[in-house]
Amino acid sequence: MKLATLKDGSRDGQLVVVSRDLAQAHHATGIAGTMQHLLDDWNFVSPQLEDLAATLNDGKARHAFVFDPRQCMAPLPRAFQWVDGSAYLNHVELVRKARGAEVPASFYQDPLMYQGGSDDFLGPTDDAVFASTDWGIDFESEVAVVTGDVAMGTSPDSALDSVRLLMLVNDWSLRNLIPAELAKGFGFLQAKPATAFGPVAVTPDELGDAWQGGRVHLTLESRWNDRSVGRTEAGPEMSFHFGQLIAHVAKTRRLRAGSIVGSGTVSNKDWGHGYSCIAEKRAIETIESGAPRTEFMQFGDTIRIEMRGRDGQSLFGAIEQRVAPLAP
Amino acid sequence: MKLATLKDGSRDGQLVVVSRDLAQAHHATGIAGTMQHLLDDWNFVSPQLEDLAATLNDGKARHAFVFDPRQCMAPLPRAFQWVDGSAYLNHVELVRKARGAEVPASFYQDPLMYQGGSDDFLGPTDDAVFASTDWGIDFESEVAVVTGDVAMGTSPDSALDSVRLLMLVNDWSLRNLIPAELAKGFGFLQAKPATAFGPVAVTPDELGDAWQGGRVHLTLESRWNDRSVGRTEAGPEMSFHFGQLIAHVAKTRRLRAGSIVGSGTVSNKDWGHGYSCIAEKRAIETIESGAPRTEFMQFGDTIRIEMRGRDGQSLFGAIEQRVAPLAP
Repeated sequence: MKLATLKDGSRDGQLVVVSRDLAQAHHATGIAGTMQHLLDDWNFVSPQLEDLAATLNDGKARHAFVFDPRQCMAPLPRAFQWVDGSAYLNHVELVRKARGAEVPASFYQDPLMYQGGSDDFLGPTDDAVFASTDWGIDFESEVAVVTGDVAMGTSPDSALDSVRLLMLVNDWSLRNLIPAELAKGFGFLQAKPATAFGPVAVTPDELGDAWQGGRVHLTLESRWNDRSVGRTEAGPEMSFHFGQLIAHVAKTRRLRAGSIVGSGTVSNKDWGHGYSCIAEKRAIETIESGAPRTEFMQFGDTIRIEMRGRDGQSLFGAIEQRVAPLAP
Repeated sequence: MKLATLKDGSRDGQLVVVSRDLAQAHHATGIAGTMQHLLDDWNFVSPQLEDLAATLNDGKARHAFVFDPRQCMAPLPRAFQWVDGSAYLNHVELVRKARGAEVPASFYQDPLMYQGGSDDFLGPTDDAVFASTDWGIDFESEVAVVTGDVAMGTSPDSALDSVRLLMLVNDWSLRNLIPAELAKGFGFLQAKPATAFGPVAVTPDELGDAWQGGRVHLTLESRWNDRSVGRTEAGPEMSFHFGQLIAHVAKTRRLRAGSIVGSGTVSNKDWGHGYSCIAEKRAIETIESGAPRTEFMQFGDTIRIEMRGRDGQSLFGAIEQRVAPLAP
């Protein structure tokens, strides 16, 4: 089942079911008004939406309409939790190597994760607004899961059973604000502005065999200013699977329905795959020639992030954003 | 106006208006069902609740009932944002001095804050459940504000205009998990489990003159196992006021209605005031005699946190929690 949230002037938008080919949508009116409502009462609500999705995919839904990603908010326009991992250790190794630092041994057992702001997410085609390009504006292409309720102290394997939906993420990062916040040790507030999500959230069965071992075994494409800069493989090099990330957070507390857990920048050892964030490109340049050559993003730059299923069909629809200056 | 959220089996509970003396309450049915609903539509909803509060305080509300804090959830049982400052620099100085570290000069201009989990808050009398006392279980007595919508790049002064409500906080901390998370630089996930809040959220006018310059000029009492261990002054030594804390977060992003911003452990230079967290007591012991003598909390321990207005009346009601082991 594929689901989206349409802009309707409200803070949480309007839940719709979307056809597998992303061509048609249908309001979920009478079943659930919002994505959070679905997640709060998954066992009761989701079978009814699955029925509607089947009717829509069969072309038999009477009030179907054309699906337009430009009308989408983030699937969860605001959420009660957003935690992001850095589960591709190649990314961590690259960035550290570029600044001559070692990766601590513990990083191979203990996932690096941060608690993000979740009160104000961007829709897939919303402008990303910043006051200054001096901050080092960068995209980060990722995948994320949305969980149901998770018990405190859950194991990585049972944590996987809590995965309700998958989403596409652009975890906007302000690279030049990161060093100072890292040094304080308290995590990111200013360096991680509003995060954007792909148009459609999907249940794991939509991925077929590509959802395996708590990982998404598909290719993630990033196009910066309409040039393909990354075709990274999200599956095999994810050092911690989503169950491990969820269990890490749940060690000392419960997670409640609608918690979003991200993978971190998808990254591969083979540089031929390109990159899912500019910081990595600059790290490679630094390792190869002593200094970065590629600049971070400028006002007017665009970023397009998309992932296709094994059938070639866009799985989540595309994130297509433009970097824009804050109005004075 | 004083407001609370009563347990009703739902995830967000039931909004009620509470009398100034915390004796009576009245359902807000027909005005707003939940605290988040009020915050989402403050300008329309709050005047209606103010009318109800006036009637209740006059003893003329026809369906008033006895207010019982044990029936309370956190005023916001789950929120879209919880960020906590460390605005009392004396606390930072003490803890660092105890481990022989300097306070960086930047800490006096740039507030230390972390993004907390907000999907699962504890009510004022809910047990605080942990799997192990080895984690170094500690309370932290604080105050917090709840904001309306805040624009990106707002100034500290205009940020203060967004303050809608004040609350009492117990920011549970697992001290022995903090060093490892601090070293990773990505902030706290495991070291900051579910946070608890006082029974009642209040509008700033309930504080009268005690709400001044973005600070709460009142005494915060902490009673550990029924022994008063802290009577700290929350006002004069708050190095960054709430407007500064909000503006710090809003530098690169908007804050949306219902964001909770905490003060951090209330701390005074004069040790005669006692302490609002055990870590500080242990820091003082270390500075005075080379090692801490006071242990962190054990299963069965209780903590009571309360703040009285200048009239002697309990402002928010009391947080009264027991430390309990996780059921196997």
